[in-house]
Amino acid sequence: MASTTPCKTILASKVSASFRDQIHKEIQERKVQPKLVGFLANDDPAAKKYAEWTAKTCAETGCGFELRKVDKQDLEQKITEANEEKEVNGIMVYYPVFGGKQDAYLQNCVSELKDVEGLCHKFVHNVYHNVRYMDEEETMKCIIPCTPLAIVKILEYIGVYNTVINYGNRLYGRTITVVNRSEIVGRPLAAMLANDGAKVYSVDVNGIQVFTRGSGIKLKAHKVEDIDATVEEVVGLSDVVITGVPTSNYKLPTKYLRDGVVAINFSSSKNFEDDVKSKASIFVPSVGKVTVAMLERNLLRLTDYQNDIREKPKSQ
Amino acid sequence: MASTTPCKTILASKVSASFRDQIHKEIQERKVQPKLVGFLANDDPAAKKYAEWTAKTCAETGCGFELRKVDKQDLEQKITEANEEKEVNGIMVYYPVFGGKQDAYLQNCVSELKDVEGLCHKFVHNVYHNVRYMDEEETMKCIIPCTPLAIVKILEYIGVYNTVINYGNRLYGRTITVVNRSEIVGRPLAAMLANDGAKVYSVDVNGIQVFTRGSGIKLKAHKVEDIDATVEEVVGLSDVVITGVPTSNYKLPTKYLRDGVVAINFSSSKNFEDDVKSKASIFVPSVGKVTVAMLERNLLRLTDYQNDIREKPKSQ
Repeated sequence: MASTTPCKTILASKVSASFRDQIHKEIQERKVQPKLVGFLANDDPAAKKYAEWTAKTCAETGCGFELRKVDKQDLEQKITEANEEKEVNGIMVYYPVFGGKQDAYLQNCVSELKDVEGLCHKFVHNVYHNVRYMDEEETMKCIIPCTPLAIVKILEYIGVYNTVINYGNRLYGRTITVVNRSEIVGRPLAAMLANDGAKVYSVDVNGIQVFTRGSGIKLKAHKVEDIDATVEEVVGLSDVVITGVPTSNYKLPTKYLRDGVVAINFSSSKNFEDDVKSKASIFVPSVGKVTVAMLERNLLRLTDYQNDIREKPKSQ
Repeated sequence: MASTTPCKTILASKVSASFRDQIHKEIQERKVQPKLVGFLANDDPAAKKYAEWTAKTCAETGCGFELRKVDKQDLEQKITEANEEKEVNGIMVYYPVFGGKQDAYLQNCVSELKDVEGLCHKFVHNVYHNVRYMDEEETMKCIIPCTPLAIVKILEYIGVYNTVINYGNRLYGRTITVVNRSEIVGRPLAAMLANDGAKVYSVDVNGIQVFTRGSGIKLKAHKVEDIDATVEEVVGLSDVVITGVPTSNYKLPTKYLRDGVVAINFSSSKNFEDDVKSKASIFVPSVGKVTVAMLERNLLRLTDYQNDIREKPKSQ
């Protein structure tokens, strides 16, 4: 993949354009406008910005959006109420709220049928196990966590997924480093990329793991092994490097990168050095706008499931 | 509650004796021995000790116990296999494994019908919301997280629960400090005590919260508020002080304690100073053996549910 051409910078707004158009078209074809409710219970500037983007994108595409600012101690109660509101089709929370495991608890308080972020246990579990449908009849596709899904869509857009290869195997032969192993982005992303055939180095402060699909190409879930290696070593082996370290202090040294690497940053801080373009063939400085488009995509899908289920109760 | 009598030390082994006898009796009455599987995937000495106690208590009461030592990367797969094994009635994991939210993920991988620790989302959610039955017909009592349940049983044993008052309200008038707000012990414990009528100060490094049942005595779930107070202040107001700080460096100063306080430590380290008995009326230095008895109690309950469900499938 080494390239002598100058680096191409790809903006998230460009990747998300076709998704936004598609969502806008689908909403126009519907009788009812799907409604998303976002809960803001912190003072994090990144969360506020994300909420503003969500409002703006929803206005553009025609989704309903309501931001509800609540005290963190009332949040669970407010989520429970929104789960019951018929006019609410999707629910999201701007994390972190409490941080730590109490946020993991809250993620499971959102009704599965309204979980546009895809963070409840069932959806995350399905990602790890490469389960692509919610039902045995394979009529309802799984909801996938928004940010990992956005990164996959970006990788498709920029040609890292090879469409010549069969679906489900389009990253076979790729080596990808993901610097972040959070439960809401880094770990599910590594699993998804491995499930599609890539060799994935997953880096966090606790060490480096390698995610693969195992020895064959047909195993259902990915395999994980701890390895004894440095960030420099695994980045040096990677065609694609994806970073998501939520601090402005972290910079991945450009000298670690291979010539022609694809560099993607999903942190709200700049995790690559300013000279990253001297090495990269493609640089994606942020992914947030694609994440918002994926939120809306999940919203439409869940609205369909809700309508189907409301029209066809299980007893039929 | 001030007392001039010397402090009485209550050992967990004494509290657990009647539960162990009851479990032994119930197992003798059954045709099939319930089987518990414990997964050990770390090198934590406290986890190993807990596993040894579990094995010993199971041998005494007649439960089957099998310790499975596994690599942490294989743990989810092994849990999934045990979920499917008909001869396994209960599953527990000696945490921490990865620490953080990945452990919260694993807690939700254990089948609800085998979750003897009571750590899956549904059971913890029910504790917070004071839901006491798993089914609408109120035939299946909820499984309650083991350690909080053990502490409640100890509080009953030592007379902190007042049996003159109606069930569900027996802590009305009590003030209790809990130093620990983890998702697996401190937070559910504070909620349970508040649901039973106590005013509970919940202390951790992020600050102090007060859990109450709200203004009435009939509200379903507890209420939580952040308060601006010091540990010294809230401990000084408390009839009961319960500690669970997992480090040998932490010592709650004896001078903070009210005369005649009930002091309970559930950490594997000594969180009270050596002179705690100069102030306390009752001191419970550890709870582990009661926790193991509660594990077995949950195991018997889940075994019953499994048998009922196996004999009476939903279609009947």
